[in-house]
Amino acid sequence: MTHVTSLANNRRLVIDHHGRTREFAALWLRERSPDAETLDPRTGQRLIEAAELPLDLAVESAEARDGELHLRFSDGHRGVFDLDALFDDSPSDPPQRLWDAASAPRPEADFAAAVEDDAALLAMLEALHRDGFVLVSGVPTEEHGMQPLIDRIGPLRRTNWGGIADVKSVADAYDLTMTQRGLEPHTDNPYRDPIPGYIWLHCLTNAADGGDSTLSDGFMAARLLRERDPAAYDCLTRVTPGFRYRDDTTDLEGEGPLIELDSQGDPVRVRYSNRTERVPALPTEELEAYYAARTAFYRLITGEELTLHLKLDPGQMLIMDNYRLLHGRSAFQLAGGVRHLRQGYVDRDSTASRRRVLRRQATLAPTAGEPA
Amino acid sequence: MTHVTSLANNRRLVIDHHGRTREFAALWLRERSPDAETLDPRTGQRLIEAAELPLDLAVESAEARDGELHLRFSDGHRGVFDLDALFDDSPSDPPQRLWDAASAPRPEADFAAAVEDDAALLAMLEALHRDGFVLVSGVPTEEHGMQPLIDRIGPLRRTNWGGIADVKSVADAYDLTMTQRGLEPHTDNPYRDPIPGYIWLHCLTNAADGGDSTLSDGFMAARLLRERDPAAYDCLTRVTPGFRYRDDTTDLEGEGPLIELDSQGDPVRVRYSNRTERVPALPTEELEAYYAARTAFYRLITGEELTLHLKLDPGQMLIMDNYRLLHGRSAFQLAGGVRHLRQGYVDRDSTASRRRVLRRQATLAPTAGEPA
Repeated sequence: MTHVTSLANNRRLVIDHHGRTREFAALWLRERSPDAETLDPRTGQRLIEAAELPLDLAVESAEARDGELHLRFSDGHRGVFDLDALFDDSPSDPPQRLWDAASAPRPEADFAAAVEDDAALLAMLEALHRDGFVLVSGVPTEEHGMQPLIDRIGPLRRTNWGGIADVKSVADAYDLTMTQRGLEPHTDNPYRDPIPGYIWLHCLTNAADGGDSTLSDGFMAARLLRERDPAAYDCLTRVTPGFRYRDDTTDLEGEGPLIELDSQGDPVRVRYSNRTERVPALPTEELEAYYAARTAFYRLITGEELTLHLKLDPGQMLIMDNYRLLHGRSAFQLAGGVRHLRQGYVDRDSTASRRRVLRRQATLAPTAGEPA
Repeated sequence: MTHVTSLANNRRLVIDHHGRTREFAALWLRERSPDAETLDPRTGQRLIEAAELPLDLAVESAEARDGELHLRFSDGHRGVFDLDALFDDSPSDPPQRLWDAASAPRPEADFAAAVEDDAALLAMLEALHRDGFVLVSGVPTEEHGMQPLIDRIGPLRRTNWGGIADVKSVADAYDLTMTQRGLEPHTDNPYRDPIPGYIWLHCLTNAADGGDSTLSDGFMAARLLRERDPAAYDCLTRVTPGFRYRDDTTDLEGEGPLIELDSQGDPVRVRYSNRTERVPALPTEELEAYYAARTAFYRLITGEELTLHLKLDPGQMLIMDNYRLLHGRSAFQLAGGVRHLRQGYVDRDSTASRRRVLRRQATLAPTAGEPA
């Protein structure tokens, strides 16, 4: 049963549909009226100028029948809405699964399968979305071995440092990445705008002693910090340190909180980069609170409770969500052999778009093995 | 005269330097100690693990002499700081200059000069930073005519739609950009992550009747809205509509407020895209407040008070800050001739880096004409 009543001079409707009650603004319904004059059927682009609709727009008649809501608006427009769609609350993306060391998943994918097969590519992209990383095996151990899989998803992000680049020890290292030092857990390039979305880290050789990779889930760290030290959590969502990288030909600056929240108050991005952080000259009390909160977060992201250890073999590749995961490595000894990794960045929008389109196609396609 | 006193068990210093007094946290000084053990001299990267410094770190001795501050910290480290640098408040970037139609600047640059000469390139980039746009003349009227100037700044941003792309009317238009419709003032692609930083819009032919470009300064619109309708301003900084573009092969979604503020409460990005906005099913009161606020903002960005009109001639190009400016166009009639523009995107970080490095070099270089 569906029941419709109107309020506020017909500027609002209250709809009771199969026992669920919801209030709708006439303007909200009008600007998303699912017809070809209002929304382009191919792209969903809005064809009317929504801000020119009168703010007192009303519904002049409303009738629910056969699962549809038929409306006539005071501007003369008629629209037909699917009632179930109006009450559909399901998010457009599936939920992420936060993890600690004890519950850490080990999402895996096969390179050749993901390159050749849409279902395998979809499974890889859904694992990456859910867990924040995926381990890909069978990557050709060539300098641009990862490229065919990038080409399946979206453009490689080029920065002033180029496209796919080396991560290996060099004699005249100008960046800590190229030394034998261990690297604390960090996110990449918070001094950029845009910050890289996904990191693709591909192992060509890894014969050195040490050089293990570490991963920790920054969203899980944020959740634990909020539970255990709410003041520290609040501080890290509020204070925005700067981040800077500067050399003879480059001068990059960014700023943002270590834990960035969306409008619902949920973490959408973590930043952590000891090497490049530059805390501004804030009032001393605020600085001291920030340092205490930063230390609490650091203890979490470096502690064994959250740290997943793994060592990439040649032909393996990690794809990591640079808004969510922190990655690092232990120190290594080149006396033990060569360590040569290659790294590239891919944007978030192309990655998410590919996942959603593949999911849509998989949902529409008839199930394999079923009679046609 | 410089005078130093300590507070809070030596965890804070109060420095009086030439009549200005400021308080410093010992930890803040320690982690930016300008020596090669603490900060890499070439890149400024921090070499110590700041989060492992003790939170009760203190200054054991402090002495000011010859414009320098000599400190010994409780962890044994000694650091020497330039006192003027400690008190230097100048921002790393020059201020932006907001404009309305009456005060609108007309920053111009010559393509060949900017390609060949660093001083001309710096002037162009500083105008772009200050005014939010710059009009470049003398661009070769070839499909990739803008490329040599992009190569001077940073990589062209590639999206799933490619690199430099056509903006022209086509018979089977799947995007409103390619129709003859006028386009309301908007920012580009708020449904992407990352949102494009700078738009490069290059005119090859513009013989059609109409098709004038319009520009308005979104930061000026935000300032006026805050003065004239603070509730609307507050609403637009708080409510985050979604933005979506969807076709057979693409599914892009983003969200964010129409006026995005930084941690100091100043606008850092505007979003406006009537075509792709999708307002979520918020509580009805909040929706109605949002619609009223959106209309107030729309009146500003479409009103003659803020709108700059110009028509690109062949060989001219606009570079626009897509975080700040709104751009649109009037409708045009193809009966009058062909309208063919080309468009590309360049990132913010590479653009800002180039400007800062050129400024640094210009400041360091001896002034022309001076004796060596």
